[in-house]
Amino acid sequence: MRTSIATVCLSGTLEAKLHASAAAGFDGVEIFEPDLIASPRSPEQIRELADSLGLTLDLYQPFRDLEGVGPDQFADNLRRARHKFELMGRLGIETMLVCSNVATATVDDDELAAEQLRQLGELAAEHGTRIAYEALAWGRYVNTYEHAWRLVRRAAHPNVGTCLDSFHILSRGGDPRGIEDIPAEKIFFVQLADAPQLSMDVLSWSRHHRVFPGQGSWDLPSFLAHLMRAGYTGPVSLEVFNDTFRQTDVGRTAVDAMRSLRWLQEHAAARLGNTEAPVPLLRLPAVEDPTGIDFVEIRGRAGVERIEDMLAALGFTYAGTHRSKSVRLWELGQARIVVNDADTQDGRPVVAAIGFVVDDPQRSAARAGELGAPSVPRRSEADEQVLQAVRAPDTTEIFFCSRTNAWTSEFSVKPGDERATRAARPEDGADSHVDHVNLDQPWQRQDEGLLFLSAVLSLDPQPSLDVASPLGLVRSQVMRSADGAVRLALNVAPPMARQSVGSHPGIGQVQHVAISCPDLIGLARRARDRGLEFLPVPANYYDDLAARFDLPAQTLATLRELNLLYDRDDRGEFYHLYTPTVGEVFLEIVQRTDGYDGYGAPNAPVRLAAQLATLLD
Amino acid sequence: MRTSIATVCLSGTLEAKLHASAAAGFDGVEIFEPDLIASPRSPEQIRELADSLGLTLDLYQPFRDLEGVGPDQFADNLRRARHKFELMGRLGIETMLVCSNVATATVDDDELAAEQLRQLGELAAEHGTRIAYEALAWGRYVNTYEHAWRLVRRAAHPNVGTCLDSFHILSRGGDPRGIEDIPAEKIFFVQLADAPQLSMDVLSWSRHHRVFPGQGSWDLPSFLAHLMRAGYTGPVSLEVFNDTFRQTDVGRTAVDAMRSLRWLQEHAAARLGNTEAPVPLLRLPAVEDPTGIDFVEIRGRAGVERIEDMLAALGFTYAGTHRSKSVRLWELGQARIVVNDADTQDGRPVVAAIGFVVDDPQRSAARAGELGAPSVPRRSEADEQVLQAVRAPDTTEIFFCSRTNAWTSEFSVKPGDERATRAARPEDGADSHVDHVNLDQPWQRQDEGLLFLSAVLSLDPQPSLDVASPLGLVRSQVMRSADGAVRLALNVAPPMARQSVGSHPGIGQVQHVAISCPDLIGLARRARDRGLEFLPVPANYYDDLAARFDLPAQTLATLRELNLLYDRDDRGEFYHLYTPTVGEVFLEIVQRTDGYDGYGAPNAPVRLAAQLATLLD
Repeated sequence: MRTSIATVCLSGTLEAKLHASAAAGFDGVEIFEPDLIASPRSPEQIRELADSLGLTLDLYQPFRDLEGVGPDQFADNLRRARHKFELMGRLGIETMLVCSNVATATVDDDELAAEQLRQLGELAAEHGTRIAYEALAWGRYVNTYEHAWRLVRRAAHPNVGTCLDSFHILSRGGDPRGIEDIPAEKIFFVQLADAPQLSMDVLSWSRHHRVFPGQGSWDLPSFLAHLMRAGYTGPVSLEVFNDTFRQTDVGRTAVDAMRSLRWLQEHAAARLGNTEAPVPLLRLPAVEDPTGIDFVEIRGRAGVERIEDMLAALGFTYAGTHRSKSVRLWELGQARIVVNDADTQDGRPVVAAIGFVVDDPQRSAARAGELGAPSVPRRSEADEQVLQAVRAPDTTEIFFCSRTNAWTSEFSVKPGDERATRAARPEDGADSHVDHVNLDQPWQRQDEGLLFLSAVLSLDPQPSLDVASPLGLVRSQVMRSADGAVRLALNVAPPMARQSVGSHPGIGQVQHVAISCPDLIGLARRARDRGLEFLPVPANYYDDLAARFDLPAQTLATLRELNLLYDRDDRGEFYHLYTPTVGEVFLEIVQRTDGYDGYGAPNAPVRLAAQLATLLD
Repeated sequence: MRTSIATVCLSGTLEAKLHASAAAGFDGVEIFEPDLIASPRSPEQIRELADSLGLTLDLYQPFRDLEGVGPDQFADNLRRARHKFELMGRLGIETMLVCSNVATATVDDDELAAEQLRQLGELAAEHGTRIAYEALAWGRYVNTYEHAWRLVRRAAHPNVGTCLDSFHILSRGGDPRGIEDIPAEKIFFVQLADAPQLSMDVLSWSRHHRVFPGQGSWDLPSFLAHLMRAGYTGPVSLEVFNDTFRQTDVGRTAVDAMRSLRWLQEHAAARLGNTEAPVPLLRLPAVEDPTGIDFVEIRGRAGVERIEDMLAALGFTYAGTHRSKSVRLWELGQARIVVNDADTQDGRPVVAAIGFVVDDPQRSAARAGELGAPSVPRRSEADEQVLQAVRAPDTTEIFFCSRTNAWTSEFSVKPGDERATRAARPEDGADSHVDHVNLDQPWQRQDEGLLFLSAVLSLDPQPSLDVASPLGLVRSQVMRSADGAVRLALNVAPPMARQSVGSHPGIGQVQHVAISCPDLIGLARRARDRGLEFLPVPANYYDDLAARFDLPAQTLATLRELNLLYDRDDRGEFYHLYTPTVGEVFLEIVQRTDGYDGYGAPNAPVRLAAQLATLLD
């Protein structure tokens, strides 16, 4: 399948957009007119640059407000089009996108519109070009792809075809199955965009909130499958107006965009029979559902020993130090925390890496590579386990681990290491594992991160949620594996919550590791007896808890005594506690009963306020 | 009129919110429950703090999902309410907000709902409290204020009244005139919010996009007038859920909020007869429409001499240096640019101040002060003109000037000042004046800036516009006086466009002064002959211009030769040019013909791309 991208998807100069598109592996681009107009390069120079980069120029767009007008206006429209066809000759572009009239149409007459399209097609032919007519969702008279196709058919000119755009079709709730009824040779171009389901006017939705396939709510794989069944063999292009992509790093956005088309081809192929695609669709090494979190690595030049003190107090067993690196392993049941003395950007401890258990780590890493994930260079000795790792958009290192945990044998307790003397009790570790990891996301990487985790790790996005912090709303979205064994909560904090307070990170700049246990009250008591102080929970919280839930007085007293938080859903209960924050990391211990499936979201504002209070103290 | 504000309007801890509300001059606050729950202070301590600050606690809110439920659920709701009434006793709050049921109502029966309200009123009475029942716009069965009032009337309990919220009424297009039919003693509380007209689901609109009165699109003065005619004497409170206010400086937001209530009282009073307000409404010194821009001050430690070179080349006359300050004056007709060698935050030249001509500068300054505008300390000698100045939210200094321009007499040309030798020609200055000033706005100050300029300078907001820059969309909104003599364009640039490039500000961090002239082509030629190079405009722009407008070839050639830009509206034409940027400032020279009323917005993306290109060179 030939891949293309509209220059409007990307930030920067036209030259930068072309370089980034080529580097990300696109076959071609659509030239979005304002990008050309603002460029100091001549059309010939742009053509030359694209040639030198191995990019085809697939489409010139948009030409607006052509049809459904009176004769004088139409004559001026043809005059305008002639300029553009000449320009396309200089650029070497064959196809021009013509959008259905929004602003100037005054005549709602299919015969007239078709005739005007035919005349434009005739003019295009004279210039060796052709036009792809597309229905905008907000076109005055023409706003469905079926209507646009009827006009194209009626125009009956070889240089007049249609352009299909998933946004304009799906935003109106159109049925894309009808695409299969359009002759492939009359589909001159295809533009794809996904979008989150928003209830707002369709123009604003279109101009600001489009995303790449796989980042929104629509079934783009089925859309592409319809195109393949129609026999379409032309370029499949991304046209995504997105306020964030327009301003962020052009190279990363182009890689993100290409990832979406690779993911899309794989998923469309899965919906098609063997012979239904007229062009080969890219195949990737099969994705694997991770079956659990093997380890979480906390890294920091200074301060990690305070985290190790917390781990010891929480009942983690010290499993020793690595034989060649300044890295230590702590275990609580199946929950493994690796503490690494290496440096970080701000020197502060961070959640630096997460290991996911998969059947075939080599295959998962190969897949991630084909999806444009940068690999993480990893120094290891000849006889050590080679772990495969890539970097997620938020910079977290993602390790693919086998079930064997063979790497843990590289850790052993050296004589005299006092950490080994902190005696955990057997009951501490029973049935514990990493329940979820909560990662701070840069606002620019939200959509990219979602597609990455979905395509690379087969995690599904859950509905997102606004959590009120005292410094603004935090947008929180959980990505989880089908069986819930792996859960990552991705948080995007408001700018003010991401500002450091003295040497401490803002409350929106932290990550946390949540560890499940079967008896939180017991664990909390033992940890407290070992000297660990939890994040203090205000008394008012417990008064409110008493109002919301008719809890036994004894339970309430215990929660209050231990600074535990509580939640309940239709199925079960949730008890949890938070440690203080060290660097950019804190720990949460959780207990789920009877299939409680949430994360204590109603308590998150209380936690954030308490964390701010400790910063302001 | 008693003023109040819901703590949810503000950022930070509950304590910080109380301090800021008191400092801004509010009489009381509504306690938003989550703020109390997250506070480490006990209810008694909060009450004590409010007392010590002279604030009353006017409302406890919200109590949700009470009515329209079966008996078991209702019994639990009463249990829940009892906890809250007890809490209100500890806080010393009399009134609790009860929102119409959204989540749990299953019975659409007014008799049942009224009876349940009555029972809650009875329980409230036992605790010395009362309930204010409010229709949420998305309530399941009750979602209009008329319906809520019918239920309150039917409940017929002295401790059951209604709460009126402008958002819930106006967002549904409700008619607020019916408020006058509600007996004043049954209106227990009033909450006000304004909102921009957005077409999106009402819940998202409500939770994220409310603004203070005067910052949105609704007629809140009339709303308040209806309340006054109803005889309402209770607190008028702001309840504004706004993503920006929730995270930005609490003290400034509180001042902004109080400004909105002062502005509101003034405007409501103007709609009321002398005897219609049951409580006195604040009166302010009358606002004055500015009749022009007296001067613009460009300030900077280094680089201002390059701006003076540009002014000289553009034909400005050097009017001398100030007798006591290192400040110089340049004039082109009625356009006066003051150049000040004083320091700025980044040392770079900025648009630091604007002088507006008003009839009575003292009165305008007094009004600004009552509207919470900080005054600008101004050093001046005994015999010099005292100019009245305040600081706008974007930090620009706003000067109020009389028509006499007496301050210009403090400037004179010192012997030997070579600036005086740059001979401007008389035709340069004819009919010139400051056409508009374009100011970069911090994203957090957008709504605040709009109300400030509207309330302090009587400027009206025009529809806002998205301008595509190569580093993201810039939101641009013009504020203008009724006759168009004063126009400020406020631009909010995306974060990436506000990042510095080396020592240069980002393309979104600049301001500019646009000066009108009657003969742009002549002025441009003379300026070019004096050595000024304008911002280069790409050739592709002129090719597109030829397509869009059927301009004479000679005109097009002249535009191209001189790097001029062109636009046209229904009335006339617009010619303009841009100088290079120095520090954070550039100049624009414009010529309007036949009443063209825009700002060349279609050309702004070309300008921004050209400015980025000069940074990347």
